[in-house]
Amino acid sequence: MILTVTLNTALDITYRVPSLRPCASHRVSEVTERPGGKGVNVARVLAALGHEVTVTGFAGGPTGRILRDRLAEVPGVLDALVPVSGTTRRTVAVVDGRSGGTTQLNEPGPAVTHAEWSAFQEAYRDLLASASAVALCGSLPPGVPVGAYAGLTRTARAAGVPVLLDTSGAALRRGVAGRPDVLKPNAEELAELTGSHEPLRATQDARRRGAGAVVASLGEEGALAVTPEGRWRAVPPARLRGNPTGAGDSLVAGLLSGLAERLPWPDRLTRAVALSAATVLSPVAGEFDRAAYEELLGRIAVTAEANAA
Amino acid sequence: MILTVTLNTALDITYRVPSLRPCASHRVSEVTERPGGKGVNVARVLAALGHEVTVTGFAGGPTGRILRDRLAEVPGVLDALVPVSGTTRRTVAVVDGRSGGTTQLNEPGPAVTHAEWSAFQEAYRDLLASASAVALCGSLPPGVPVGAYAGLTRTARAAGVPVLLDTSGAALRRGVAGRPDVLKPNAEELAELTGSHEPLRATQDARRRGAGAVVASLGEEGALAVTPEGRWRAVPPARLRGNPTGAGDSLVAGLLSGLAERLPWPDRLTRAVALSAATVLSPVAGEFDRAAYEELLGRIAVTAEANAA
Repeated sequence: MILTVTLNTALDITYRVPSLRPCASHRVSEVTERPGGKGVNVARVLAALGHEVTVTGFAGGPTGRILRDRLAEVPGVLDALVPVSGTTRRTVAVVDGRSGGTTQLNEPGPAVTHAEWSAFQEAYRDLLASASAVALCGSLPPGVPVGAYAGLTRTARAAGVPVLLDTSGAALRRGVAGRPDVLKPNAEELAELTGSHEPLRATQDARRRGAGAVVASLGEEGALAVTPEGRWRAVPPARLRGNPTGAGDSLVAGLLSGLAERLPWPDRLTRAVALSAATVLSPVAGEFDRAAYEELLGRIAVTAEANAA
Repeated sequence: MILTVTLNTALDITYRVPSLRPCASHRVSEVTERPGGKGVNVARVLAALGHEVTVTGFAGGPTGRILRDRLAEVPGVLDALVPVSGTTRRTVAVVDGRSGGTTQLNEPGPAVTHAEWSAFQEAYRDLLASASAVALCGSLPPGVPVGAYAGLTRTARAAGVPVLLDTSGAALRRGVAGRPDVLKPNAEELAELTGSHEPLRATQDARRRGAGAVVASLGEEGALAVTPEGRWRAVPPARLRGNPTGAGDSLVAGLLSGLAERLPWPDRLTRAVALSAATVLSPVAGEFDRAAYEELLGRIAVTAEANAA
């Protein structure tokens, strides 16, 4: 199976309002709710692709209960979340019906105790025994050491399980030192890590910091990969109109799916960028349009890139 | 005991953010959560004043469970909520740390079935047997007939229990026909009901529609009462700086407390306006500052009003 780790899981709530006006009162016309956090989203896409997936991380309190109840309804995803005494966070996305813009409110997440962090590490080691690949995803909740991802990466590598890391800020800066097989930053995370706003240069620089390969997600411009086998740019056929929520998570799912199947890099990138584009095109935020995905698989342009000057 | 009815209970969530910017992503720095809906807020204030209070209405789903767990922690409030198959709504108040402004997002509430509405009416009749006064508060959830408050008012009057009605829109327009003993609109609700923006004229007009007495809450200008015993204006000593959240619910609690104790109208108004003002002054939204309340009791100016021309 493929293992995804989400230390800061979330119950993702989406509110539709006719128009969001600061300091006004709004009737929410539509409420949707689903289990979230990057690794949970990645797992949902992997399961839809037919992979066996196990989700681990933390869940606790009444929100954690709702999250686990909802997760149990997702076919193909196994819940191996570790209980915490604190309460799992909510995120609220307020979608403005007029502009289509989304205002995001993210709760901080529960404080994790030392004992809970130890219990997680033990559960993680056990899960690795049957994992073909692992993704370490998202922010760290309070109480988890900032070097957590470096440690979890080393544990996986020692167990012979390839690791993909998708996080930001200090967790990314420290995590890359654990030498993950694949690093998946977006343009902003890449610039924050390397100080460079030139994507190819920054991607190469990120790789030199310890990652086996770096795949930068560049929004409408697709993805840029610097790997031991070569450098590629993978681009969808046209400007995509739709909702980019979850596009990065679908990209990770595509990379992980290809990693688990040991596909050559250009095929991994094709799958990842097609999934990401099919997520933008889906009417439901964070889901991918399967027909669009199948069709896009034949239309992703993967081209070799020269070294940055 | 005093009975408060909240057909559309809510879990009230407050988020503090440094500054709310539409279409941006925000880390919430502080999350608070408490059982809400007007009648629940009124009950909390009544219990703090030393009254025995019972809360009824509907609660269901995971949010309903959280609400009931939290309600059980409030001393002096008895939970007599009726279960529904749907899920109790959340409200999210986003407080901007820079401007202090609050952006409110209210979920619509669960759909109530015919059988659930019948079960509630039966529970309500039973509870009236030991009630000294009842308050019917807030919006109606989907599925509850728009004339609900008129029916509940008649049931209470038939049982000899005085009724206070605090709602808005069609529920108010239809509810007043049940002849509640006290109607508590704010300036906006009063204008919507009567078409008049002149408070005294509108208050007198509202009373002619069937209420025994009408107490209009006028924010910083206190309250205006048109009753069978006379007309009064009750005004706090000075412009109050603070958070007006819950000030209307505290006014209702003060009126209800005076109604249950059969106080003369000027004393009821003094208590109600002092409580309301002490709620604005409290650092915690929706709670009242007890020391301020005791002190304000001696400083509310209650003056007789002439008839509107």
